Amino acid sequence: MSETELHAADTPAPESELDEDDRLKPEFVSAVLEAVDAGDVETARARVEPLHPADIADLFELTPFDKRQALAAAIGDLIDGDVLAEMNDWVREALVDALEPHQVADIAAELDTDDAVAIIEDMEEEDQRAVLRALDPDDRAAIEEALSYPEESAGRLMQRELIAVPEHWTVGDVLDYLRGNEGLSTDFWEIFVVDPSHHPVGTCALSWILRTPRSISVGDVMKREQTLIPVEMDQEEVALRFQKYALISAAVVDGDGRLVGMITVDDVVHIISEEAGEDVLLLSGAGEGDINEPVVDSYKARVRWLVANLGTAMIAATIIGLFEGTIAKMVTLAALMPIVAGVGGNAGTQTMAVTVRALATNQLTDSNSLRTIRREILVALLNGSTIAAVIGTAVTLVFWNAALGAVIAAAMLVNIVIAGLAGVIVPLTLDRFRADPAVASSIFVTMVTDSMGFLVFLGLATAAGLTS
Amino acid sequence: MSETELHAADTPAPESELDEDDRLKPEFVSAVLEAVDAGDVETARARVEPLHPADIADLFELTPFDKRQALAAAIGDLIDGDVLAEMNDWVREALVDALEPHQVADIAAELDTDDAVAIIEDMEEEDQRAVLRALDPDDRAAIEEALSYPEESAGRLMQRELIAVPEHWTVGDVLDYLRGNEGLSTDFWEIFVVDPSHHPVGTCALSWILRTPRSISVGDVMKREQTLIPVEMDQEEVALRFQKYALISAAVVDGDGRLVGMITVDDVVHIISEEAGEDVLLLSGAGEGDINEPVVDSYKARVRWLVANLGTAMIAATIIGLFEGTIAKMVTLAALMPIVAGVGGNAGTQTMAVTVRALATNQLTDSNSLRTIRREILVALLNGSTIAAVIGTAVTLVFWNAALGAVIAAAMLVNIVIAGLAGVIVPLTLDRFRADPAVASSIFVTMVTDSMGFLVFLGLATAAGLTS
Repeated sequence: MSETELHAADTPAPESELDEDDRLKPEFVSAVLEAVDAGDVETARARVEPLHPADIADLFELTPFDKRQALAAAIGDLIDGDVLAEMNDWVREALVDALEPHQVADIAAELDTDDAVAIIEDMEEEDQRAVLRALDPDDRAAIEEALSYPEESAGRLMQRELIAVPEHWTVGDVLDYLRGNEGLSTDFWEIFVVDPSHHPVGTCALSWILRTPRSISVGDVMKREQTLIPVEMDQEEVALRFQKYALISAAVVDGDGRLVGMITVDDVVHIISEEAGEDVLLLSGAGEGDINEPVVDSYKARVRWLVANLGTAMIAATIIGLFEGTIAKMVTLAALMPIVAGVGGNAGTQTMAVTVRALATNQLTDSNSLRTIRREILVALLNGSTIAAVIGTAVTLVFWNAALGAVIAAAMLVNIVIAGLAGVIVPLTLDRFRADPAVASSIFVTMVTDSMGFLVFLGLATAAGLTS
Repeated sequence: MSETELHAADTPAPESELDEDDRLKPEFVSAVLEAVDAGDVETARARVEPLHPADIADLFELTPFDKRQALAAAIGDLIDGDVLAEMNDWVREALVDALEPHQVADIAAELDTDDAVAIIEDMEEEDQRAVLRALDPDDRAAIEEALSYPEESAGRLMQRELIAVPEHWTVGDVLDYLRGNEGLSTDFWEIFVVDPSHHPVGTCALSWILRTPRSISVGDVMKREQTLIPVEMDQEEVALRFQKYALISAAVVDGDGRLVGMITVDDVVHIISEEAGEDVLLLSGAGEGDINEPVVDSYKARVRWLVANLGTAMIAATIIGLFEGTIAKMVTLAALMPIVAGVGGNAGTQTMAVTVRALATNQLTDSNSLRTIRREILVALLNGSTIAAVIGTAVTLVFWNAALGAVIAAAMLVNIVIAGLAGVIVPLTLDRFRADPAVASSIFVTMVTDSMGFLVFLGLATAAGLTS
């Protein structure tokens, strides 16, 4: 007890620097930066030292771009591999670029392969070679092998440090092996059981080992059903597999089924969050959508999308142009037509968001896509009828024109149903052609809801003889 | 080796029923449902039995609503707690509603508290009481206590089954304790070290225990820095904390700091994915956005949003109405004005998506919000200039009217900058008032980009004397 209390009194609780959402408080960030500005390295270090690596990484992200070098110089060796591994890609890349190759090599050498690769993979090829040369041969070989796998594949994500034992070993053998080898990783939650040619035959959670007498063989404790990860598998698939089967760690196997590495859930959690969160960025055409991305990169990613949208908006404008005669006779139509297009667009976006998420989470397959389309038509009919009733009544009363009210109500209903159909069919079609539905769906859906909104409304108004 | 091969031959590899994305193949789903329809329970059971619980859960989700009862009746006891825990909330709720309370109690009794609570919490209160009565007193007390915490809190999420040992125990004591107690859970990755009044003082990864000789005390092995989860904490905060600190499991403490439960990362992975993925649904006003949600619930969630959008569209229509005189003189303006509003809306959505994600991932705080606003203005100026140049040139050439080209270019630039400002300031403001920026941002941003698009374009056209 007393030891604990002493310890607690020694280290200032790092939570005090965090707000209720676990974010560093602005006062703390500015206090550190002021100390750095004033050249008071002692104070800056003293304040940063108790922080968790994830919080030191956050500190860099929250520091303005032009002050990050000074901060790095001041707190120096506190920026270890764990800090870099937690850092935003853009921020890390800029920071690593400023380091000497041998400094990067020192940091990479102390990390598991997966974290070392994450730091090195974004460097310029020449710098990368310089870092690799500065590493000792074992580390270099491991990292070079990882870099030989495609980006964002399991091979990049996995660590080579793992515990693999033969099936005939007893629990006692395993304990003695683990206790007797100082150099082994401590970062593992399961051990893998392999045959003589290094094919995985089973997995053992550490809790099973702990609960089993020394004399029992691991072959009798292990679970034979395993979820193996092919080394070429895309990280998004890896993340979905971890999520679906609630995995803590999984064996990675090469083309011949031999165990070559291990992925642990803590490396996958970031990917799960990134992949789930990127749909909203992709659907809006915001590219990687990272606030730390250089302005020019954000511009390039977003302007392409806006130009595409300009194209679809011009199509819609052309459709309106066909009805200039009608509008000239009744300018009120020009004021009302964006309502039909806009609310239709929103209805389409709703359906599209639901469909894209269902596809991304593997909930929507060929088995239930027809059912889902029927379901969305039903929802669209209900929504369309409600909105049509509201807007029809409002327009009838405001303009004291029942025919105009009927036209806008009919156009609204039709456009919402079209929007619902487009919102579910466009992503399903893109998915069937193995394109990412989040990337291109909204351009098509907006084009349909805009064009059809104007066409149906102005077309009905003309057909109904409103302006004659 | 031979044993493994025999085993592999015995059990048909369940992967064969899955496509390359780990989804059940449509052929498999229809084969099972045909067997159920034909009353061939044997075949249905034989095909479903080798599946992982997560895949049995998927099978139910992919089965049409009206056939789920028949499927449940056919495969009966294969629907255990693990299957229910993996099942979509809506699908599970409907299935559980159809079971007798004592059947639910049998299932709940075999589960960890967190999974049992997930199944019971959505039931009608009367059914809930019936299930609780059918449980044995210990299970009932644990589940009743969990239900006493707020929905979506750590208290609901945690399991009570955990390993807690006193600091003075040796590693040998821990091993003997774990081996000697049959009733203990095997579902743990770390053990917690507690003081005599059950306050956690440290955490020990199982790998550290395994690598340490029997005589060493756990106090010398454990890590004293712990990330504790208050029992009332919202599950979204829990998920962010797991993600930030790369936790495998964490101790949950009550108001007095006493250890009351444990949350493991596999329970949090679903939440991380849900919370990250829900932004796209919230921003589009699609409610919970689940394809298994009853149609009426989807309708209610979405129609509210569409009515709100109808309101903002009417404001935009009113603004257009102010310029009816201008439009009457030059109907081309009516065809062009949706371009200014639409592309502005897209630019606003891009900025908004980036801001909402940065807020959700705790990357955007008071420390860098001014910097982020400046950054978005810069991106908007670049985007605005580009799009203005394209549309200005196009309109000048198509209508052979340089003044009209200049007016639409100026309006486009202004609206894209306004859109960028609204896209970053609206979510930041909502967040500052502790409202979820994903819920209401897009209504406000669309209102601004629509209204300002029409106002600036038609206003400039009038001011420039285009129609005189």
